[in-house]
Amino acid sequence: MRISLIGAGRVATHLAKALSVQHQILHIYSPTFANAQTLAEQVQAQAVRSMDQLDTSVELLIIAISDQAIESCVLELAEYFKETLIVHTSGSTHIERLTQHYARAGVFYPLQTFSLQREIDWTQTPLFIETACSEDLHILDRVAQALSQRVYHYDSKQRLSLHLAAVFACNFSNYCYDMAAQVLDAAQVDFSLLHPLMLETAAKATQNPPVHVQTGPAMRADENILNLHQQMLVAAERPDLQQVYQLLSDGILKRHHE
Amino acid sequence: MRISLIGAGRVATHLAKALSVQHQILHIYSPTFANAQTLAEQVQAQAVRSMDQLDTSVELLIIAISDQAIESCVLELAEYFKETLIVHTSGSTHIERLTQHYARAGVFYPLQTFSLQREIDWTQTPLFIETACSEDLHILDRVAQALSQRVYHYDSKQRLSLHLAAVFACNFSNYCYDMAAQVLDAAQVDFSLLHPLMLETAAKATQNPPVHVQTGPAMRADENILNLHQQMLVAAERPDLQQVYQLLSDGILKRHHE
Repeated sequence: MRISLIGAGRVATHLAKALSVQHQILHIYSPTFANAQTLAEQVQAQAVRSMDQLDTSVELLIIAISDQAIESCVLELAEYFKETLIVHTSGSTHIERLTQHYARAGVFYPLQTFSLQREIDWTQTPLFIETACSEDLHILDRVAQALSQRVYHYDSKQRLSLHLAAVFACNFSNYCYDMAAQVLDAAQVDFSLLHPLMLETAAKATQNPPVHVQTGPAMRADENILNLHQQMLVAAERPDLQQVYQLLSDGILKRHHE
Repeated sequence: MRISLIGAGRVATHLAKALSVQHQILHIYSPTFANAQTLAEQVQAQAVRSMDQLDTSVELLIIAISDQAIESCVLELAEYFKETLIVHTSGSTHIERLTQHYARAGVFYPLQTFSLQREIDWTQTPLFIETACSEDLHILDRVAQALSQRVYHYDSKQRLSLHLAAVFACNFSNYCYDMAAQVLDAAQVDFSLLHPLMLETAAKATQNPPVHVQTGPAMRADENILNLHQQMLVAAERPDLQQVYQLLSDGILKRHHE
């Protein structure tokens, strides 16, 4: 299949690399041409300077850019493209954002956190696909199945719940690590001491419902420790962390003691 | 070495099992005798019904009970014990809680999250030890080194920072998983779809500073998605989750955009 990509960020890069094994990546467009060039070189594609230079005869065009930019992008693409299946990769952008401007639209959402410095195991990455026309679902399904063993046909509403949940499970848990790192930095204690704990906590919550493996002072309703920790954060002039500590501890207390 | 334990919960159980490989576990005391019996059977020890039945000639007595109960426990133990090194296993209880009642005191804090259903890799579990008398540090060090490759001599203040950070990195990240599970349960979507994401998020944050691998709508300052997610939580009548979403997103926004 001949595929082009809009975007040269983390998702676009990982996706282009994975797809280039089986498919021909033709064009890469990014508002920053240098980024398009960097990615294009890695997947033997050609970087283009504007969207009107994209070859409209490709079978699939993938939009992997920030959610905010998707709609204006489709609006412009609809000037040039008529016959190509165009999909976005966003968890929280409804397929209607595409279909209101362009008929042959779809969604190709990989549920994973992407960093440029880490490889992704695509075979285990859940892929959620959706298309406006049922014939296109077969096309997208074939592309998805070749990448991953975990392909699901989800509509935009289900995908939205997944993305919201992913924000809690991934973005917020990473921010919890970050807050822990800030506490340790202030005390000049090495953050790597927490690594075994972080890995075990995540592993445990994939083998049991997280609610069953909750631990800690809030879970034990240990008021002394809860107060002590909050006093420490206030004394360290971190009212922001104190507020998070209180809200999350209250949540755990209510979840387990009401 | 002959060792007895006060407590029969998660920490006491994992610790007794690990120590019983090299040492003789003599007595187990727990306010609930049946729990003491259950643990005693697993480590060829004897369960006792009251603290005055504990053999005072053991070399080490380990208190592995909830933080709140430690002080009154030591107060009672000080009636019977004079010569035995007595340590607690708490991250947030200052050694002075012991030394004000009993001279030969110490701390043996394993930085890990313990569940009865999962094995612990003790060799990789960081152990933080502290004693009132320097001679006792050698004894505790020997016990610790035989279990773990990562033994540290930390004072109560440093240990307290570690425990506070561990609450963020472990207890709060698990609660983030739990909130994600609640979002998915309400949408009848399978939580296991998030497993690869959770494991990758934790692995990534052990290989890079978490602040460098933050992703998500708050990181991208994507106001549309942030508002959409919060509207979903309000519509789902989950103001508690909406409040968490807002506070953590604000924290991420400030951390990365101010």
